[in-house]
Amino acid sequence: MNVLYVYAHPEPRSLNGALKDFALRHLRAAGHEVQVSDLYAMNWKATVDAADSKEPPERGRFDPSHASQRAFQNGWQSDDIVREQEKLRWADVVIFQFPLWWFSMPAIMKGWIERVYAYGFAYGVGEHSDRHWGDRYGEGTLAGKRAMLVVTTGGWESHYSPRGINGSLDELLFPIQHGILYYPGFDVLPPYVVYRAGKMNEERYATVRDGLAARLDTLATTAPIPFRRQNGGDYAIPALTLHDDLARGEHGLRIHTR
Amino acid sequence: MNVLYVYAHPEPRSLNGALKDFALRHLRAAGHEVQVSDLYAMNWKATVDAADSKEPPERGRFDPSHASQRAFQNGWQSDDIVREQEKLRWADVVIFQFPLWWFSMPAIMKGWIERVYAYGFAYGVGEHSDRHWGDRYGEGTLAGKRAMLVVTTGGWESHYSPRGINGSLDELLFPIQHGILYYPGFDVLPPYVVYRAGKMNEERYATVRDGLAARLDTLATTAPIPFRRQNGGDYAIPALTLHDDLARGEHGLRIHTR
Repeated sequence: MNVLYVYAHPEPRSLNGALKDFALRHLRAAGHEVQVSDLYAMNWKATVDAADSKEPPERGRFDPSHASQRAFQNGWQSDDIVREQEKLRWADVVIFQFPLWWFSMPAIMKGWIERVYAYGFAYGVGEHSDRHWGDRYGEGTLAGKRAMLVVTTGGWESHYSPRGINGSLDELLFPIQHGILYYPGFDVLPPYVVYRAGKMNEERYATVRDGLAARLDTLATTAPIPFRRQNGGDYAIPALTLHDDLARGEHGLRIHTR
Repeated sequence: MNVLYVYAHPEPRSLNGALKDFALRHLRAAGHEVQVSDLYAMNWKATVDAADSKEPPERGRFDPSHASQRAFQNGWQSDDIVREQEKLRWADVVIFQFPLWWFSMPAIMKGWIERVYAYGFAYGVGEHSDRHWGDRYGEGTLAGKRAMLVVTTGGWESHYSPRGINGSLDELLFPIQHGILYYPGFDVLPPYVVYRAGKMNEERYATVRDGLAARLDTLATTAPIPFRRQNGGDYAIPALTLHDDLARGEHGLRIHTR
């Protein structure tokens, strides 16, 4: 398969760096084609602004969404954005590896999403009617591809458990796994998580590394998180609320998985 | 009161820009002292790296957390970080205004959090014992201060409702409101949210502006979100799971509010 590895950590000689290097070696040894977007090494521009488009200057105000749409349609996107979109189109599987900083991805990776996910590419795709509200949440440009997070945390696993004080990791990751990955079409595999990343020794590292290898060996076969498709009949259109007879009386993020 | 206004939008002539300008005028007219961190206008550096510390170069690897701790303790933090920490110490209330991009804050604001929230300032504070697991979630450097989000979304309110496809806005904002604001001690006021920000006209704008004014007029009196204190007896220490007799049999992010 074609695997794109999107990675954000500033120090190559970190646990994250070691796991990334291991993953790349392991994937290549298994015969996969691999491309890497090492965001710190690329000095990735994290901030959306008017310079993201080569559009001839105009006097109008800068609307990030409209500017993105015009640039995508007219071939005016900056080269770094185009390169990353091409990697996404090429990939069968995309892995995003990062340390959990303040309960989300590092700013540099958030900025990769914001800039690469152009209007017309990752959103604003498909027709809107009374039966179909755009190609998103299960459909879209990236449909048919798989994505997986590889995440390290400083905190303990119990702090991220279903009744842990930080909130459960699945729910903290919902804006990413559902909102960033499932939205443009990815099938999202369960994340690979390393807790207490600051407390590593050789024995633990071997276990963590072997666990990652096992997940890399099963990228094609692991069952994705069963998020509900937007246009599959589970949601009212255009309100996009879950129909009353599904997860009856419940609310909370878990109602969006079957 | 002293109000710090942290703001992220690239275009001054946007809805966000208009609301920010209105809020600043309104707060000053009410007699508050106001400082502004307009992150795009400041060209805020979004990315954590070794340049965040003036520490004499060493050959060791860059550990973001340890480097932050040493820089904070030894006065080696870069000047832009120190200035923002001083604003936070000065403030009685901090308002964070941003457009919701991919279900979270813009990368430039996430990078403000990552860089300004130093080890020893916003985390790694307080003693750890079998009754007290650091000063966080209700205690910490920013305790006694209030924070509020002002958020615009392109999407419809129903899409962010308790059974809406995006996930409820309160749950999408949990990593920010609980993980970023409550963690270092802020009392977090309910957010002020403007849905369908792309569909604005003069009449709607007047309503939105008046709604914001009402929230600004009640910053001192609005009841905060009743998140549970970490060290108040609701959580087991050190597992930090909610005691069985509270929200019995439940899980999900809402168990962390009283």
